[in-house]
Amino acid sequence: MSKISKILIANRGEIALRIMRSAKEMGIKTVAVFSEADRNALHVRYADEAVCIGPPPSNQSYLLGEKIIDAAKKTGAEAIHPGYGFLSENAGFAKLVADSGLILIGPSPQAMEIMGNKLSAKAAALKYNIPMVPGTEEAIQDVNEAKQRAIEVGFPILIKAAAGGGGKGMRIVEKADDFEEQMQLAVSEATSAFGDGAVFIERYVTSPRHIEIQVLGDNHGNIVHLFERECSVQRRHQKVIEEAPSSVLTEEIRAKMGACAVDVARSVNYSGAGTVEFILDENLDFFFLEMNTRLQVEHPVTELITGIDLVKEQIKVAAGETLSFTQEDLKISGHAIELRVYAEDPNNNFLPDIGTLHTYKTPKGNGVRVDDGFEQGMEIPIYYDPMIAKLITFGKDREEAIERMVRAIEEYEITGIETTLGFGKFVMQHEAFKTGRFDTHFVGKYFTSESLKNEDETEALIAAIIAAKLFQKGGSIETVKQVTKTSSDWRKNRLKF
Amino acid sequence: MSKISKILIANRGEIALRIMRSAKEMGIKTVAVFSEADRNALHVRYADEAVCIGPPPSNQSYLLGEKIIDAAKKTGAEAIHPGYGFLSENAGFAKLVADSGLILIGPSPQAMEIMGNKLSAKAAALKYNIPMVPGTEEAIQDVNEAKQRAIEVGFPILIKAAAGGGGKGMRIVEKADDFEEQMQLAVSEATSAFGDGAVFIERYVTSPRHIEIQVLGDNHGNIVHLFERECSVQRRHQKVIEEAPSSVLTEEIRAKMGACAVDVARSVNYSGAGTVEFILDENLDFFFLEMNTRLQVEHPVTELITGIDLVKEQIKVAAGETLSFTQEDLKISGHAIELRVYAEDPNNNFLPDIGTLHTYKTPKGNGVRVDDGFEQGMEIPIYYDPMIAKLITFGKDREEAIERMVRAIEEYEITGIETTLGFGKFVMQHEAFKTGRFDTHFVGKYFTSESLKNEDETEALIAAIIAAKLFQKGGSIETVKQVTKTSSDWRKNRLKF
Repeated sequence: MSKISKILIANRGEIALRIMRSAKEMGIKTVAVFSEADRNALHVRYADEAVCIGPPPSNQSYLLGEKIIDAAKKTGAEAIHPGYGFLSENAGFAKLVADSGLILIGPSPQAMEIMGNKLSAKAAALKYNIPMVPGTEEAIQDVNEAKQRAIEVGFPILIKAAAGGGGKGMRIVEKADDFEEQMQLAVSEATSAFGDGAVFIERYVTSPRHIEIQVLGDNHGNIVHLFERECSVQRRHQKVIEEAPSSVLTEEIRAKMGACAVDVARSVNYSGAGTVEFILDENLDFFFLEMNTRLQVEHPVTELITGIDLVKEQIKVAAGETLSFTQEDLKISGHAIELRVYAEDPNNNFLPDIGTLHTYKTPKGNGVRVDDGFEQGMEIPIYYDPMIAKLITFGKDREEAIERMVRAIEEYEITGIETTLGFGKFVMQHEAFKTGRFDTHFVGKYFTSESLKNEDETEALIAAIIAAKLFQKGGSIETVKQVTKTSSDWRKNRLKF
Repeated sequence: MSKISKILIANRGEIALRIMRSAKEMGIKTVAVFSEADRNALHVRYADEAVCIGPPPSNQSYLLGEKIIDAAKKTGAEAIHPGYGFLSENAGFAKLVADSGLILIGPSPQAMEIMGNKLSAKAAALKYNIPMVPGTEEAIQDVNEAKQRAIEVGFPILIKAAAGGGGKGMRIVEKADDFEEQMQLAVSEATSAFGDGAVFIERYVTSPRHIEIQVLGDNHGNIVHLFERECSVQRRHQKVIEEAPSSVLTEEIRAKMGACAVDVARSVNYSGAGTVEFILDENLDFFFLEMNTRLQVEHPVTELITGIDLVKEQIKVAAGETLSFTQEDLKISGHAIELRVYAEDPNNNFLPDIGTLHTYKTPKGNGVRVDDGFEQGMEIPIYYDPMIAKLITFGKDREEAIERMVRAIEEYEITGIETTLGFGKFVMQHEAFKTGRFDTHFVGKYFTSESLKNEDETEALIAAIIAAKLFQKGGSIETVKQVTKTSSDWRKNRLKF
């Protein structure tokens, strides 16, 4: 078993802090690396040592594997935790770390490499008969053959150009009668766009849910799963709200999906924490999408329902320890939901916002966890992912987790920047979410910039009333402006009247 | 079932906020009451409405039952939650509330009255054969009779004056041979002090642990217990660190103690949340001490290991609902520890400190809960209990909860005021606490003002080094002073060198 007494965290923001906290609890020293833009960041303050590795953007600092390895050697760190993003799924970096005699807290470079490529990942998974979205395995051009396959797969089906991308040569076909016409359109579109008319046929999942399984393996052949996370609420094809367990899985499907995920991990002798993503259709049939070979942003929901600290397990596995629990030891208890608090404007297509956190107060109390990397007065740098925090709530059941999320969102005070907090509240209070009847089309189907308007108007009304009262009491225009400029300001001031 | 749509919280500080959070999650409106000293307090800001009920101290405001009932009527609150302290165990207030047609979120005035008096509480408990500290039930004066009883009870025994108080006429007797002499001394001391030589004989518990059981009853005859809390680490005979479960109870004793606590509650038809306190001796025999007829300060540790929100249960029971779970549904999962963060100086006999929270930053992350009622820049008012916050950590086992507590204490930044944070760290790292071998004498036995000195010296040394470096870099005396004045200051600045 390797001794790990000092870890370098090759990341920034909330995930760097989150990893350091677990290391600290294990009595392990931490080394932060930081770009010049992050000189005053919390992860730099929190670490036992900190090394500046260059200017922003990331390709001048956080993506420079050799600089990071140098920093580890200079500070005597035996291991490197890559977090998520940046170098976390870079097989080349993983190999470099190993060649330097250091430990990468993550899977082998081989596992990363195989799962990093869609074709090799699919090939590995197929050895274990993992269900894939039904369809043609090879590209075809013959209409009759294609129609035959489409009928076998079952409608609706998706025709997509083999050489394609960007939606070109893509057609959704609802019923067999329409097939020839749509196929011909797809083939001619593909031919003119890519010079290649060959297409794939696959099942079109009308109402897909994104469900993923957390797995954990050690270097001694043990692999377990820690149940699922439902990540169907997405904007711009990116997750924004995740929960565990899913409101839709039965015990039977959960067990089946878990076993499949363990098999996928086993196909590459996986060690450490990883995530196997599936798409789930309306009949609760599921199909393998891909495997992420790192810690996931949304890992806290799994921690809350299982009681397992995933970062500690990653470190223990990397140090050569055998998993201290079996599949049978793991149980789901309660329900957890995560909202990613992004600096972006839901009323403007979720475009990133930048600026200073003039007010920044996080919610507290029973069942509320905030993983963040900022404090009041700090700026959201333009160079990096605009996530400010992860707001996670835990309750005895889904209903309580939702109620707690609404309470926590209302308690969160952020001014100076637009965030996804209001959007999160909209989702929590939406009937489709509350009843668990939603899919990845949630945002497109239900959310428009009008959705948050009613609340804004009410707040504006109250702000106006306060302004009027302030005037009555002899307040200056400046005071009135200050008091009414944001909803959280007036919330704090309303009791003075 | 009564409808509760608005609750007045007749309390302040962390517990008022904590209650409001649960109410908010249930969709119930909240009314705060506040004294003039609390005008800017967080609980006032958090509530939907707030009513000033007079100046400090408490007997001019928080203890004025009629004013509080008036505020409830004026704001249309149907129920009053008294929290802990203040009017929470005042049977007269409970009656007043009921007579006003309002609901008190708590047990009946009768239950409060019986349990509020040691003699009537003991009498009620005896009907259910609850174990009491063995000893004479009536005062005796005859030496031979007393010795006979002492032998039956078993040595060591405690002789205490029937009319006594303040330790006068009190004697610990180790063995039978010493009995006559000590009895005579006790009797003559009692006679001269109180004019009454009669004494009680009772078992002297050499190494007592304070263990209490959380109970919960509804108005339909159902009572369950939510396991124990160990509260043996005390200073000035007051709890400062609590945990659940206890590190010393066996499943068998836990079940027995739980059943006894339910019986004690049943003896007064208890409804709502209550706590039955026991003393546990070296042989794991336990004896009834008293029952607290309210929510306890340390209730969060129970919430974390059971997943039950006790305040929500209190509210539901008060509204007439039947308990939604049975004893069999309740399970212990994980381990929780609470440190009361008091504004007091452990190096000066834990005397209360007052002042301004110049820096106030609370720890975050997995398994950390902070229940508080302050924010940076606020003052700790002199009029009330000096508790700043409750820092609670939860882990999969006791070891993880302890490690997390140490991490959270180190992350907590408070300047401007002395606190029990350093003391908490001392306890967490003490062998007696870590191994679970401690009793209510922990502080007296192990803690002196020297205990925190080593750490202070190390910090002073580092501060000195920083000061020297600052000078080298041309820092002014003022800068040096500012940088070195507190340990958390230098912690934050150490990376600049």
